[in-house]
Amino acid sequence: MNAEAAVSAGLTSGWLAIAGLGPGDEALVTPEVAAALAGASDVIGYIPYVARIAPRDGLVLHPSDNRAELDRAVHALNLAAQGRRVVVVSSGDPGVFAMAAAVFEALEASPAHWRDLDIRVLPGITAMLAASARAGAPLGHDFCAINLSDNLKPWPLIEKRLRLAAEADFAMAFYNPRSQARPEGFARVLELLRECCGDDRPILFARAVSTPDEQLRIVALGDALPEMADMRTMVIVGSSRTRIIERPSGRKLGPILYTPRSVPEPVADPVS
Amino acid sequence: MNAEAAVSAGLTSGWLAIAGLGPGDEALVTPEVAAALAGASDVIGYIPYVARIAPRDGLVLHPSDNRAELDRAVHALNLAAQGRRVVVVSSGDPGVFAMAAAVFEALEASPAHWRDLDIRVLPGITAMLAASARAGAPLGHDFCAINLSDNLKPWPLIEKRLRLAAEADFAMAFYNPRSQARPEGFARVLELLRECCGDDRPILFARAVSTPDEQLRIVALGDALPEMADMRTMVIVGSSRTRIIERPSGRKLGPILYTPRSVPEPVADPVS
Repeated sequence: MNAEAAVSAGLTSGWLAIAGLGPGDEALVTPEVAAALAGASDVIGYIPYVARIAPRDGLVLHPSDNRAELDRAVHALNLAAQGRRVVVVSSGDPGVFAMAAAVFEALEASPAHWRDLDIRVLPGITAMLAASARAGAPLGHDFCAINLSDNLKPWPLIEKRLRLAAEADFAMAFYNPRSQARPEGFARVLELLRECCGDDRPILFARAVSTPDEQLRIVALGDALPEMADMRTMVIVGSSRTRIIERPSGRKLGPILYTPRSVPEPVADPVS
Repeated sequence: MNAEAAVSAGLTSGWLAIAGLGPGDEALVTPEVAAALAGASDVIGYIPYVARIAPRDGLVLHPSDNRAELDRAVHALNLAAQGRRVVVVSSGDPGVFAMAAAVFEALEASPAHWRDLDIRVLPGITAMLAASARAGAPLGHDFCAINLSDNLKPWPLIEKRLRLAAEADFAMAFYNPRSQARPEGFARVLELLRECCGDDRPILFARAVSTPDEQLRIVALGDALPEMADMRTMVIVGSSRTRIIERPSGRKLGPILYTPRSVPEPVADPVS
């Protein structure tokens, strides 16, 4: 039996897990992901994520550069088809602006028998949930998640989504808010948000959550500056109902940002 | 020193962790949450979530009924203020339509010195990420999360958000799609979605993901029935770009549902 027939018959021992490592702290890696890594022969991913995996005998690490997602995906599928036990690592959750979609894009363009491979996505703690938890519960009511990078979509679509999300009164979580290559984009986002949501709306800048570099800042939109975000920053804008609980004691506890679970019924018109 | 002064000075040994247990499988509970549970004196939560916690000496379990969220939150804060080590458990992530916002609502209405308590939110794998991972990567591009229960908000606001989310071309993840008390609501949601997104749009019904009762079904919106969802079902509707990869072999592998990472630039008008 050749390799193609073996894959189609489910007889290959190879598998591919696309796993989320969470935001950085090892205590946020699920046991499911830890078990997949323990059973892997190959780990593939962006350099800083592969750097989080401890080397051991029998494990081949394949770090690769950013923006090489499709090449990396084909490489991973190819190794699994050869019988290797492959983990593709993403930070956060692999299904949220990360490697899972890239692997499936590659799978669609690949030899048909690869579709019979054992491919699993192992969820992780995505950045917005880690940031939200640290700040309180800003995503405690309806919300949306938008990737602000225009590498992969037209800029006007980003602006359209921001306006509609504001009209829907979603809290908004922004991934990839600001890159060195296009710092002006995030400045335009902040302008648009001030226009749609007003200057008083709270905005959270949560940098490198759960790592030693963690830094949280909650400001009003009117005081938000583009420089408050970099590519390690998760940005969350509240809905119209998002609130801040100040903690006034001398214990240096940060304020709590949260969105109540409920929206009250509109007051009935007393005339009708 | 009385209890109030002790809390304000940070001298109480009590703490409150609001922890996410993930969708059901113990392999999806983070080590951070496991450690908090191991150090707890009291665990508080909705009956089926507290039932997941193994009893041990020195641990008091406080299961309570659904819809008692605010009472439960006050109880938890009160125990922490008395020096207890309290974990409030939610399924999934506590910050997504769960107990974290309820605790902060209760905190705002409580004695001011409770604001000095050690309160942490410990993130978990929320249902939409678990469901998405099982099906492929339907949330691989911009998306929104909407709680379809109208217990806590006016029904017209739900419809407004659905229309705006469809116009924004978000993938949509729906929590609490259907209850016995209001089965007609989800039927109206499906009608509205067919009107906004067309009959061909894929919709995922992911029931009890990661438990022995897990069941996944992907259908076209035109074939979706209200009965396909219950309160244990996570529903995800794709964006206009969400795709299905069929796996035609005899191995009974389910189809893969995913949303590509990119949206192409519009084709330039050849006249201009």
